[in-house]
Amino acid sequence: MEEDRFISKQVIKIRGEERKETEDFITVESPVTIYLNGNELVTLLCTPEKIDRLALGFLRSEGLLSSYGEVEKLSVDEEQGFIHVELKEKTGLAEKLYGKRTVTSGCGKGTVFFNVLDSLRSKPLTGKLVVDIATVFKLMNDLQQKSELFKTTGGVHSAAIADESGILFFHEDIGRHNAIDKIIGECILADISTRDKIMISSGRLSSEILLKTAKLEIQLLLSRSAPTSLTIELADSLNITLVGFIRGSRMNVYTHQWRIAD
Amino acid sequence: MEEDRFISKQVIKIRGEERKETEDFITVESPVTIYLNGNELVTLLCTPEKIDRLALGFLRSEGLLSSYGEVEKLSVDEEQGFIHVELKEKTGLAEKLYGKRTVTSGCGKGTVFFNVLDSLRSKPLTGKLVVDIATVFKLMNDLQQKSELFKTTGGVHSAAIADESGILFFHEDIGRHNAIDKIIGECILADISTRDKIMISSGRLSSEILLKTAKLEIQLLLSRSAPTSLTIELADSLNITLVGFIRGSRMNVYTHQWRIAD
Repeated sequence: MEEDRFISKQVIKIRGEERKETEDFITVESPVTIYLNGNELVTLLCTPEKIDRLALGFLRSEGLLSSYGEVEKLSVDEEQGFIHVELKEKTGLAEKLYGKRTVTSGCGKGTVFFNVLDSLRSKPLTGKLVVDIATVFKLMNDLQQKSELFKTTGGVHSAAIADESGILFFHEDIGRHNAIDKIIGECILADISTRDKIMISSGRLSSEILLKTAKLEIQLLLSRSAPTSLTIELADSLNITLVGFIRGSRMNVYTHQWRIAD
Repeated sequence: MEEDRFISKQVIKIRGEERKETEDFITVESPVTIYLNGNELVTLLCTPEKIDRLALGFLRSEGLLSSYGEVEKLSVDEEQGFIHVELKEKTGLAEKLYGKRTVTSGCGKGTVFFNVLDSLRSKPLTGKLVVDIATVFKLMNDLQQKSELFKTTGGVHSAAIADESGILFFHEDIGRHNAIDKIIGECILADISTRDKIMISSGRLSSEILLKTAKLEIQLLLSRSAPTSLTIELADSLNITLVGFIRGSRMNVYTHQWRIAD
């Protein structure tokens, strides 16, 4: 689906006083609906690429799935933008839990958030991963090098998971959350441990992004952009190293700087 | 609440090989819960400023409120982050409609989206607002000048509503959607017509942003950033002029360029 990530379009470019019609490249936004055990769960607006990964990552982030072994069947209708996920154990627990969330909160995030928060607060990560400064700069540089869709359209965010030797999985998406969920989906599908990995994002680090990675026990979260107060607070208490504004040869370390070695 | 928009924090700044502890300013992220007629509706993660406007704008965007005249009582508990909105007509229709949405979609957006889409597709805007190129550049420049929180923290988006003479309301928020909802809330509170106004955003123009402004019959949507394919498609069919990548003396006009005069 590589070619479906962007379209070519005639656009009026104004440069000072001059007005010119010219070809430009626009990032594609498509709705994708996830069905869990036959029930419609959610519609996400996303870059229509690797939407099976998006579904797996979304389900993992929402706590509805923990490994690919739990999946009975996964089918994708790319034309319609439908993804059907059947779990082996149809206890209905997943749907009930999810239903519970949407009852108390219009966006399925509010109340959950604080439940998750409470449960996470009690178990800070114990990992002792240390990477050096040069590796952090290299990983962010690699992320930017790989951001082809951003270079073409200027309208997407990128995310990647890496170890010290380099990037393992990379995605771009119109949504910050989707890009990270696609990375999580890749890890689920490849059945790799995320504990000793590094998450990299081009986007701002809100608390929801931090919580997604905390659930995977990722010790190191890197971004080109800014974190919020709540993200720093959570990273501090969960023993996660948070690095922001990684640009050129500069970076800001907000928490647990011992993981960044000279 | 001006002083609650950001906090000061000790941060490790790495510049090349040098590591230095220094003061930095971080944008505050707080949960705000909206109650409608006594029922918990949604929790938003936002910049804790003018949260009454956020609530009014959110309710307007979600189709649960159309004017301030419908509000019986609005009370804000800034300490707890609670906003209670009581409507005069407690038909339960609003809650039912909203409930209906969350049943079919985990994020309250999916199914709604297409209903809204269908209903909007049939009535393109008829307004004949025309502004000149210089005004577009000036408005974007004004937006950036006013973005104090961005200049301080680098971690927020800004939005404004304007007419040809300049910006009427301006907001910054950690979320693109929140910033626009706060602007919509200001318009609701001031009871001003939005038909002949211009919406300006620092952020990417996804379809959801376009639909928010389309509901207000805003004819002109300006941004510093990129639109998506779906946003262009909607703007085209709804007769909305979409301008993106407004930077310095450059801009891209994606739809209905006749509203931008030399």
